[in-house]
Amino acid sequence: MTLEGVGQLLGNDHGHPNYHGSMESHTLIRVRYAETDAMGIVHHAAYPVWLELGRSDFLRELGQSYAGWEAQGVFMPLGELHVRYRQPARYDELVDVYTRIQDASRRKVTFAYRVMRGETRLSEATTVHVVTGANGRSQPMPDTLWKIIETGWVKPPDK
Amino acid sequence: MTLEGVGQLLGNDHGHPNYHGSMESHTLIRVRYAETDAMGIVHHAAYPVWLELGRSDFLRELGQSYAGWEAQGVFMPLGELHVRYRQPARYDELVDVYTRIQDASRRKVTFAYRVMRGETRLSEATTVHVVTGANGRSQPMPDTLWKIIETGWVKPPDK
Amino acid sequence: MTLEGVGQLLGNDHGHPNYHGSMESHTLIRVRYAETDAMGIVHHAAYPVWLELGRSDFLRELGQSYAGWEAQGVFMPLGELHVRYRQPARYDELVDVYTRIQDASRRKVTFAYRVMRGETRLSEATTVHVVTGANGRSQPMPDTLWKIIETGWVKPPDK
Amino acid sequence: MTLEGVGQLLGNDHGHPNYHGSMESHTLIRVRYAETDAMGIVHHAAYPVWLELGRSDFLRELGQSYAGWEAQGVFMPLGELHVRYRQPARYDELVDVYTRIQDASRRKVTFAYRVMRGETRLSEATTVHVVTGANGRSQPMPDTLWKIIETGWVKPPDK
Repeated sequence: MTLEGVGQLLGNDHGHPNYHGSMESHTLIRVRYAETDAMGIVHHAAYPVWLELGRSDFLRELGQSYAGWEAQGVFMPLGELHVRYRQPARYDELVDVYTRIQDASRRKVTFAYRVMRGETRLSEATTVHVVTGANGRSQPMPDTLWKIIETGWVKPPDK
Repeated sequence: MTLEGVGQLLGNDHGHPNYHGSMESHTLIRVRYAETDAMGIVHHAAYPVWLELGRSDFLRELGQSYAGWEAQGVFMPLGELHVRYRQPARYDELVDVYTRIQDASRRKVTFAYRVMRGETRLSEATTVHVVTGANGRSQPMPDTLWKIIETGWVKPPDK
Repeated sequence: MTLEGVGQLLGNDHGHPNYHGSMESHTLIRVRYAETDAMGIVHHAAYPVWLELGRSDFLRELGQSYAGWEAQGVFMPLGELHVRYRQPARYDELVDVYTRIQDASRRKVTFAYRVMRGETRLSEATTVHVVTGANGRSQPMPDTLWKIIETGWVKPPDK
Repeated sequence: MTLEGVGQLLGNDHGHPNYHGSMESHTLIRVRYAETDAMGIVHHAAYPVWLELGRSDFLRELGQSYAGWEAQGVFMPLGELHVRYRQPARYDELVDVYTRIQDASRRKVTFAYRVMRGETRLSEATTVHVVTGANGRSQPMPDTLWKIIETGWVKPPDK
């Protein structure tokens, strides 16, 4: 089992036919005490941080590092965030973030996530990212990076 | 002008006809250094925390405190979060969160938010909250609280 | 009364003879739900963030902004942090951070803080900051900034 | 090598004679983007959160879980925090937190930490914890837990 910050290739199309063979990465996170709130459960603002770990691991699975992209002047700031919270997580639990690309172009990438605790679905989420340069302006992803994205994402037949 | 944690009644229908006379509260927030990230801008996970300040102030405007609701066994955990990020905020800037109820029933309340810096729209967001007891199970809001919600929210004519 | 992100000049030597006439600034903070933890109280990692708000307001009281210092290439990264936690704070409470300079030179500044809730002392803290350039290397503070620091800090007679 | 949330027994007295045979646990942490700030480095308030992960792993090494202690009504709130920051950490780096008990009694436990990135020392820290019941009042640790602490800490000869 791999852990937070390491990620794991889950193989293509492991029983999720709607993924059309796209890669899904796995991130294991130990819930921090600081992430809980006075309700005794993980505060909802912790989830976007977990999703970000999921994205980092997804790129790592593709042999990439987001830090390296930034060093090359390619940024992917968040433009839109959508999270559904189904079941709470608690201190010291191990939760699994599964990350995949739902949609992609050279200018915009949408990630989709499932946050699980074993077989229990805690949350699902999507994030939309615009590709920009260091100046924050939209620009297309370089060909080399786009080819790498394509190795982890298979465009659905109906698109 | 009032500040973070104090809130301010903006009056009914101040030029936003789609609000149908509903109340909108105002929260002024000074951006914290800890809220910025290596891109030099406010990290996206700070926004849900700001929205929560907006909700607290909205209830305060109605003469309520969410802490008081919890003490009475009425909780409103977050079930869904949607945020659009339009322009970045930076350290030490003053940002305004405007909060209103978009939809409400005794069992579910949807808040809508605009995050502004002066005339610049930084973000808009919605959060959906299920009303529960201390045990986390869905339950209808007590009549007294529901009447208070109705003072801050006018059901649109088409609903 | 002023609030978080605004600060307030408390005047010189208001009953604290050991301050030798140095200025103390005031920051009022509304406790955020996200700052609480599963013990039902504010998590200890929230306090360093509050102290940082205190420092920002202290400089603001002197007519300065730390954002402006950074824009001039003067940074004050934290070298050392010491916090004593005496009483817990809870969601929605108003807490007061009082900030003053305890010791200063052109290369190093030590701030001291009291965190209060009314008359109850919640915490006291000190932070030590080394003055650096954008490159992170130690450098002396420019004369103009040093003179400003001296308006808010009176060197104790025994030093 | 084990990772964050898992911990690792480093064996007794591995070249640190001043530890007098006490256990030191290891926690590996991947730096999160959300932990960075506008200086491009990890914000100082992230370190107390990392130390807390170190404590959790230290207890895990002893076959304990702090969540389990709380369920038994034994709490160890933080009374004092001291951190020295020597070198910055950056996004996506792997940092190591080494945790040990520096001093202990049935009523008070002091942990000491080194935060490293490979051979580079980033920070060292201590935290002092008072043993309390769920009511927050000081109480001595139960014998069973105290015996477990003693397996991970050897009282120095000069004490």
